[in-house]
Amino acid sequence: MSVTKSDDFYEKLYRPHIHFSPSFGFVNDPCGLVYDGKQYHLYYQFRPMHNLTNEVDWGHAVSPDMYQWEDRGHAIVNSDEKGMAFTGSVVVDGQNTSALFPPGKAPLPANQMKGGLVALYTRDDRSIRKNHKSTIHAAWSGDGGNHYEDFAHNPVLDLNDPDTRDPQVFWHAPSQKWVLALASAYTHEILFYGSRNLIKWEHLSTFAPAGYQGVEFECPNLVELEIEGEKTKKWVLFISLNPGSPQGGSSIQYFVGSFDGKKFVADNSVMDFTDFAKDSYALQIFNDAPDGVKCGVSWFGNWQYCFFQPPKNWSGAMTLPRQFHLRRNEIGLPMLIQRPVGIDALVAKTLTSSQFVMEYERKVEKTVALPTNAAIDVRLEAQVTHSVEPNGWLDIEFSNKDGEVLSLGYQRQTKSFWIDRSGLKGFSNHTFSTHFAASLPRDSKSFQAQIILDGCTLEVYLNDGAGVGTCLVFPKAALDTLTLRSSQLGLDVKKFEVNALKTTVKEREYL
Amino acid sequence: MSVTKSDDFYEKLYRPHIHFSPSFGFVNDPCGLVYDGKQYHLYYQFRPMHNLTNEVDWGHAVSPDMYQWEDRGHAIVNSDEKGMAFTGSVVVDGQNTSALFPPGKAPLPANQMKGGLVALYTRDDRSIRKNHKSTIHAAWSGDGGNHYEDFAHNPVLDLNDPDTRDPQVFWHAPSQKWVLALASAYTHEILFYGSRNLIKWEHLSTFAPAGYQGVEFECPNLVELEIEGEKTKKWVLFISLNPGSPQGGSSIQYFVGSFDGKKFVADNSVMDFTDFAKDSYALQIFNDAPDGVKCGVSWFGNWQYCFFQPPKNWSGAMTLPRQFHLRRNEIGLPMLIQRPVGIDALVAKTLTSSQFVMEYERKVEKTVALPTNAAIDVRLEAQVTHSVEPNGWLDIEFSNKDGEVLSLGYQRQTKSFWIDRSGLKGFSNHTFSTHFAASLPRDSKSFQAQIILDGCTLEVYLNDGAGVGTCLVFPKAALDTLTLRSSQLGLDVKKFEVNALKTTVKEREYL
Repeated sequence: MSVTKSDDFYEKLYRPHIHFSPSFGFVNDPCGLVYDGKQYHLYYQFRPMHNLTNEVDWGHAVSPDMYQWEDRGHAIVNSDEKGMAFTGSVVVDGQNTSALFPPGKAPLPANQMKGGLVALYTRDDRSIRKNHKSTIHAAWSGDGGNHYEDFAHNPVLDLNDPDTRDPQVFWHAPSQKWVLALASAYTHEILFYGSRNLIKWEHLSTFAPAGYQGVEFECPNLVELEIEGEKTKKWVLFISLNPGSPQGGSSIQYFVGSFDGKKFVADNSVMDFTDFAKDSYALQIFNDAPDGVKCGVSWFGNWQYCFFQPPKNWSGAMTLPRQFHLRRNEIGLPMLIQRPVGIDALVAKTLTSSQFVMEYERKVEKTVALPTNAAIDVRLEAQVTHSVEPNGWLDIEFSNKDGEVLSLGYQRQTKSFWIDRSGLKGFSNHTFSTHFAASLPRDSKSFQAQIILDGCTLEVYLNDGAGVGTCLVFPKAALDTLTLRSSQLGLDVKKFEVNALKTTVKEREYL
Repeated sequence: MSVTKSDDFYEKLYRPHIHFSPSFGFVNDPCGLVYDGKQYHLYYQFRPMHNLTNEVDWGHAVSPDMYQWEDRGHAIVNSDEKGMAFTGSVVVDGQNTSALFPPGKAPLPANQMKGGLVALYTRDDRSIRKNHKSTIHAAWSGDGGNHYEDFAHNPVLDLNDPDTRDPQVFWHAPSQKWVLALASAYTHEILFYGSRNLIKWEHLSTFAPAGYQGVEFECPNLVELEIEGEKTKKWVLFISLNPGSPQGGSSIQYFVGSFDGKKFVADNSVMDFTDFAKDSYALQIFNDAPDGVKCGVSWFGNWQYCFFQPPKNWSGAMTLPRQFHLRRNEIGLPMLIQRPVGIDALVAKTLTSSQFVMEYERKVEKTVALPTNAAIDVRLEAQVTHSVEPNGWLDIEFSNKDGEVLSLGYQRQTKSFWIDRSGLKGFSNHTFSTHFAASLPRDSKSFQAQIILDGCTLEVYLNDGAGVGTCLVFPKAALDTLTLRSSQLGLDVKKFEVNALKTTVKEREYL
């Protein structure tokens, strides 16, 4: 696909340096996230033609660390006979419970296994049939995950329904079976199935009605997470919803509860969204990550504007790999914590690191020149020493000489942290919201933020992962200056550190 | 309070013509909404000094129709001994169950009652005491609601807590008692109390934990609503939350369930927000409205930016009076319906009314000149006849010669309806979000919208009240042109009507 010089400029400007993004084409949901004992596999919903055509494949990338991704191309392909290859899961079927692996054939390279990687995924035939439906297909990989061969007697699950999709499959050790969670998109039900062999599935329970309804429920993910500082764990059910989220378009809600191998029961009717901005969708957790770590990625995008946003020749990325925990809030409810994995190891150069006091009067306190060919990592810890409500604020501005400003900041009166992308000029759309805000604990006089700006991606992690903002940013020129300023707010800045990070994605041909 | 000429211009520009707004000062929560048999009483949280000072009173206005408001000034006042007069309820205690009314004294003028209006409200003494608390006070009116006299033995409810507030009180006929709902702001509990006499209150039950937590729960309102097309009713519990709503700052969530006079039990863990924009808070329903109609108003604002927004000498308004129902959605869940009350009776002049077909090709189809001294009411019903995804859209633009644009529209691919106030130049702030979107039913090829633009207020009612957007708008000059255009969307426009409405609020001195 040829690109114009202008396209080339924006492709470079928006290309992330540490986030996975496709060489070309359109990417949405992560799927099949699995660690095979040696490396991480990231499959992804892939539209090579970069539009709403009816060609949807599973692309595939592998990585030793979830940062250095090697793209291996198609793993499961769109088919004129079977339809589109929609979202699903991959599991390590080491004992060959599925009996899909012929003896001696294709164990995972690093392991003495009888079996290997099995994918359970959605075939959606709306592209080829009028009375279409979604069915769940099984496939096995004879080459360690690069390509999958369909089970001869697919589908393994057929609810005779056009909108039942996105199976998540995991091994539930206490009940010694595979569990599959499935979204019935428009009835807003999450259906649970169980199996001994990944092929015959038995209905276990249905979770519904619950939470914020939106229009479609998709991409369920049920995972057991540790509560920080306790020995207990809770099960968390993530449900992506689109469109109709409160922020507009796509978002992810979650519920905290218990799972006995058959039924997920929410502790109560409390629900929450995973993000205070709006570019995170279809969260999936890696199966079998080392040391039982629960980490995963979501799609860095929103269905409202993903077909319109720049650049032209590729679209979509994955969030940083994040580790998930729970932490009890002020009234004892366990709420989601998300932290980026392994950023410290990526620090290439510390541009500034200091402690200082910001006076109550308004003045520019700190300016840092930023390299434009690397991801930037900003860490800030501050304590309020003096404020007069309602005006006190701290502003963290990424800017350039063209007058573009990406503003983040802390507003004292509402104890909130904002992201404001309205000062960027690379993209606008009637649904491309520009202002987001997270609320910090009411009594806290201090706050902590980690901000990672990387190409067209911005991620903000507040108070050690208690609030997360995932936000696409499209300046017309590189943001090369960081400015910290405050107004009517005295601050003891305990940490202000700005790092340039090592680029982990392979450079593209046009670079 | 003197105003400059410039202030005067913006005060006129932003002053609503059919919405209640204060002559001066700062208004937030509606409180004490009651119909006394003859007229509607709207009390409101009032900061005469228009800022975050510790003076908060109950202002008071009366109306025969919820549009023509006569402002009567202070009804319950801030006190140096008792503290601020925060939100609460007013009930018609016609039988003098409270024994607050001396024989023969102050029955409501139009009624043969033994009693009259009783207010139950929050006294918050943080302004005068270090170890402050919120307590619930009773007061009775000897003059039909203009002024209230405190009960001699206040408080009637003291939980020894600084953040328990906003009593809603109503008569529960089946159990022949008064019921009071109270928000414990930070424990996120709604506490229910019962009383025979409005003075002695007994704890009945507690609703928690539930729904989206945010930071504070405020202003509970429990009301029984009809399900459209059915003879059944359900109880709906509204809870305002601030800050921390998904859209940023303030919003209102609700739950549908049952109430037996003691305990509210949600039908399930489904929750929803009342609004797809972000300027509606502290919803309250009128007690005793005629014919059992459930109508009410909310504050037209958001705590994120209410102290910064223009104009300077007054701030805040109430939404249009709305009638509330439930309607079952596609999967049978009863969801909130909100319709403005009595707009038809306000139509002064129909500027255009037509049916037509919009062709698939982009072109301006309709332009209407708008008067700038009246509220504008736009009604649109359209059916999609032809679209190619993802691009088809319909745009409804309010604009002026200065290049300002307030855009609303329908996006075919996501079946959503947007509000985009980013093209207005009268106010910006890092938390003043500019883009909002509601999702319409997935299979519907038609949609219906009523749009009311009135000074700084914009309200959108979609599909006969199924989606509502409440949105402050601050242009720098009057929006005097309405344009309807579409792109890559064929539309059969069954109704396009634009009306200028009668002004119902009294003209101010500066006009």
